[in-house]
Amino acid sequence: MTRNELIGTLRAKRSLLCVGLDTEAHLVPSPFRSGPDPVHAFNKAIIDATKDLAVAYKVNIAFYEALGAEGWRSLERTLADVPEECLLIADAKRGDIGNTARKYAEAFFDRLGCDAVTVAPYMGGDSVRPFLGREGKWAIVLGVTSNEGALDFQFLPVNGGQQRLFEKVMARVAEWGTPNDTMFVVGATRPDVLAQARAIAPRHFFLVPGVGAQGGDLEQVLELGLNEDGGLLINSSRSILYASKGNDAIAAARNEAERLRGPMERALRVRGLI
Amino acid sequence: MTRNELIGTLRAKRSLLCVGLDTEAHLVPSPFRSGPDPVHAFNKAIIDATKDLAVAYKVNIAFYEALGAEGWRSLERTLADVPEECLLIADAKRGDIGNTARKYAEAFFDRLGCDAVTVAPYMGGDSVRPFLGREGKWAIVLGVTSNEGALDFQFLPVNGGQQRLFEKVMARVAEWGTPNDTMFVVGATRPDVLAQARAIAPRHFFLVPGVGAQGGDLEQVLELGLNEDGGLLINSSRSILYASKGNDAIAAARNEAERLRGPMERALRVRGLI
Repeated sequence: MTRNELIGTLRAKRSLLCVGLDTEAHLVPSPFRSGPDPVHAFNKAIIDATKDLAVAYKVNIAFYEALGAEGWRSLERTLADVPEECLLIADAKRGDIGNTARKYAEAFFDRLGCDAVTVAPYMGGDSVRPFLGREGKWAIVLGVTSNEGALDFQFLPVNGGQQRLFEKVMARVAEWGTPNDTMFVVGATRPDVLAQARAIAPRHFFLVPGVGAQGGDLEQVLELGLNEDGGLLINSSRSILYASKGNDAIAAARNEAERLRGPMERALRVRGLI
Repeated sequence: MTRNELIGTLRAKRSLLCVGLDTEAHLVPSPFRSGPDPVHAFNKAIIDATKDLAVAYKVNIAFYEALGAEGWRSLERTLADVPEECLLIADAKRGDIGNTARKYAEAFFDRLGCDAVTVAPYMGGDSVRPFLGREGKWAIVLGVTSNEGALDFQFLPVNGGQQRLFEKVMARVAEWGTPNDTMFVVGATRPDVLAQARAIAPRHFFLVPGVGAQGGDLEQVLELGLNEDGGLLINSSRSILYASKGNDAIAAARNEAERLRGPMERALRVRGLI
């Protein structure tokens, strides 16, 4: 999916919502447990209930790998259900030497048909470049993450204290690709940092985790993160998937997705983007 | 596999060799191509031909993921063939927020039965800790890698120039675990760095990639990296797997493994470790 196509989708849906399908087998609501592939059945229902509201779906690979080869089958079936106009993100946080990174690009872009893969930057240029330069494919590189451990290394002063590590990483990674093939993960849990990240990469899309279960503030994310094309994909996983654990799980998931879409639509209107 | 068991294996086999099963389907030699699972058939033959020489086997997950659910089957079959006394490493370079890292630990330790997983440090403590503190299980955290891109971020001066990023990472990660549940990836391609890494983590095992196809010098690695328990797992993947592409592939792989084991055995003897 190209940048223009993505912008078209977010305008058409008046939304920046990314739904994270981090589905845990033991948390699948009981109505979906009777068939041969409960994880897929639940994912499909979530997708059907949110697809007019979501511009992207994100599958966190860990949750499927934890189920072995069967998990990969569930993953493949789930990916096939995501509508064409949605950006399909493999949240894999991969990063390895060049020949291995190429294998990961092959796995996620070609084999699974994903549009985007999250990539870890620690191993540098040759671990990121194999994901770049392919029309309509995206590397979403970790910039500054939403978790507590982000403080361990990402904020270290580098270059004589002129930058923090995440700023250096984002500035350097931005040189390897373009805003048409590179996005950044920028967590929602530290709003000041979102503004600083936006200053470094004004045109790039940011994938923003941390709204919802992790406590990030949606209004602040919109205020500080939006750019001229929207430029945000705001992810919610657990707050949608597990909005209710009862028989109304799907209706509750849709309600939560609608609740999140509201402020997104308003912010897009205020900025004249729709 | 506990530290003592690992030390027992390396003494018994007079070896520090880790064989990397980064098997690419299209490079499997023709004698193994006729069955239903050529990747597994080739891996099994490599394991059988090297198991008296290898203390560890490392499977790079990228090469299996690139084959989809079938790849996971090949992976599961391959892991089942690795002898009990060998350390079984999932080279996955995973790193994610706590609840996801726990899923990866479940995938690799419990589901696949691996002893060790490689882990990327960028996301900090809560991305590493779920792999720690389990008897006989190991996190092998990226310290300083063997690739060109290592220079992009790992060598950045931090803390006012007193340390480089990889030194900070290794020192901090060493605080989270112990030499009984934590190892580091330390590449072979920059020998001076190996000595510096050893100074930071004198007791930890290092998984050392980069000897062989990437050009690292085995004698230097032994000289600079050995510690009182051996403390090195020296990986070779491509130079063993593809020692010959003909009908003699397995014999050539064994010859290469023997050739690598020679200097390891001598170094272990000189240090009085065997």
